[in-house]
Amino acid sequence: MALRSLTGIKPTGEIHLGNYLGAIRPGLALQDRYTAYYFVADYHALTSVMDPQELRLASRTIAATFLAFGLDPSSHVLFMQSAVPEVCELTWILSCQIPPGVLDRGHAVKAARDAGRDINVGTWMYPVLMAADILLYDSDVVPVGSDQRQHVEVARDIAIKVNHRYGDGTLRVPEVSIQEQGAAIPGLDGRKMSKSYQNVIGLWQNPKKLRKQIMRIVTDSRGVDDPKDPDSDTTFQLYALFAEPEAVADLRQAYLQGGLGYGHAKAALFEVLNEHLALPRDHFHHWMDHPSDLDDVLDAGAVRARAAARETLDRVRSRVGLK
Amino acid sequence: MALRSLTGIKPTGEIHLGNYLGAIRPGLALQDRYTAYYFVADYHALTSVMDPQELRLASRTIAATFLAFGLDPSSHVLFMQSAVPEVCELTWILSCQIPPGVLDRGHAVKAARDAGRDINVGTWMYPVLMAADILLYDSDVVPVGSDQRQHVEVARDIAIKVNHRYGDGTLRVPEVSIQEQGAAIPGLDGRKMSKSYQNVIGLWQNPKKLRKQIMRIVTDSRGVDDPKDPDSDTTFQLYALFAEPEAVADLRQAYLQGGLGYGHAKAALFEVLNEHLALPRDHFHHWMDHPSDLDDVLDAGAVRARAAARETLDRVRSRVGLK
Repeated sequence: MALRSLTGIKPTGEIHLGNYLGAIRPGLALQDRYTAYYFVADYHALTSVMDPQELRLASRTIAATFLAFGLDPSSHVLFMQSAVPEVCELTWILSCQIPPGVLDRGHAVKAARDAGRDINVGTWMYPVLMAADILLYDSDVVPVGSDQRQHVEVARDIAIKVNHRYGDGTLRVPEVSIQEQGAAIPGLDGRKMSKSYQNVIGLWQNPKKLRKQIMRIVTDSRGVDDPKDPDSDTTFQLYALFAEPEAVADLRQAYLQGGLGYGHAKAALFEVLNEHLALPRDHFHHWMDHPSDLDDVLDAGAVRARAAARETLDRVRSRVGLK
Repeated sequence: MALRSLTGIKPTGEIHLGNYLGAIRPGLALQDRYTAYYFVADYHALTSVMDPQELRLASRTIAATFLAFGLDPSSHVLFMQSAVPEVCELTWILSCQIPPGVLDRGHAVKAARDAGRDINVGTWMYPVLMAADILLYDSDVVPVGSDQRQHVEVARDIAIKVNHRYGDGTLRVPEVSIQEQGAAIPGLDGRKMSKSYQNVIGLWQNPKKLRKQIMRIVTDSRGVDDPKDPDSDTTFQLYALFAEPEAVADLRQAYLQGGLGYGHAKAALFEVLNEHLALPRDHFHHWMDHPSDLDDVLDAGAVRARAAARETLDRVRSRVGLK
């Protein structure tokens, strides 16, 4: 049996280019080597999304985006987290295995506290639900960015503890696999692309709006003739993520020698990006416009995910002494 | 439709007379006025019981005890908490609705901290799981001792908050019903009967052991002829909880006038208690000796409880934006 990988994405707000480059694209690359499990983390989203319509739309958008970029649902597994409520049961069982201190050190809690934001109990419990996600599917490998390393470490620690207490093999101890990440994806203002900075480039806009948004990328004030620094320029950095190497080298050259205005660079970025997104965009809209097709894929994924989940949970329940 | 009441008992350690008088007996009295739901709180027990055999035995003991004392499973609902895993899903959803401060003030956490005991995340989450128990079954009334009032208040607060956020009727707001409680049931040493004081009288011992345990009740040093104070004497207080009023009045008189030794009082307590327990004890052993009969009752209860749970959860899921 092929090894299992697991990728989850939280549906909050509009999906943007940073999500695509940081999570969707590397996630989909796992299909070559693993039986890949992809889930839309709607239980997680409940910690911050209070509008049911927004949650529903964002959840379906994530699922359709995976499919639009080539997730193959005949070989891999795509599902809504909340279609496998077993994860909540495992969350409870795991919560009885660890001291609260583990959660006080959690990223989400720390970030919220640093930002002076109110948190709810769900925010605080986030790492336990995430550990349950990972452990429920007997995941062999959980590829994450280095900023997510802590979450897989928590899952590992819990699994080791549970196996020590209830016997080897109660839970599969997953391997952390740190994904190579380039520099953070820059947003319109040059800072990391993030909804909280309101500097994102939406993934599924029509070409006109996409062009308009790209034209808003902040530049320095150098004129057309001035030589420009490609490595500190957002437009160039984004271009480099999508264009062919020779085209990137050409644009770098043009930046360094001057004679090319930022407007032209942005137009080039629009062209290459729009070309990259055109076909997936059609696919995306097909899935969104045919909700029952999307439901069929998600339902089939849920059946497979749930079967895997039941296997783990039956084993765990029996080991801890539940009926 | 009759109003619903809810009673849960946590399966930890040997069941004793204090459990019977404080929870089982008043719980069973609800059958006259409500459609009564009784559950064995095995998810809760996971916060402290790490031995699977112990958890299993204690869980079945609670269920068999309810039946032994007259729970009527054809009219009421007896089930294992873990046979309705929907409660864990509701726990997660509720946890996203409340700030952590609510839990820092929880009884279980406070008691553990005061005693210098380590707690786990489950202990801390206890009030949320308890709120989910209450709200999942659309309970109208949750009769509790005054020491449990806080738990029902938390459930009420959460329900009100959820209804405000997601629309009226998302959750039924339960009424607190504080049960009249007599004085705490005294244990062998005169302190409140409690496993943690190791002063309990086991409920399901054979008569010989029961007598032996009663003979260990601590008394003062007055001799046979001395007048005795019934109101400070454990034997008398326990006798008063089981004997007929005239018999209690007679024993009180004998205490006050002297001429009756503590040994005789203990023998009288044994007689009345053993008579009270004899028939239930037979029933209890019948249920424990016929595990598949007990399973049948619990399975049927789980089916009914789960149907009620699904109704609530489907409503909640739809309101919060899950699929």
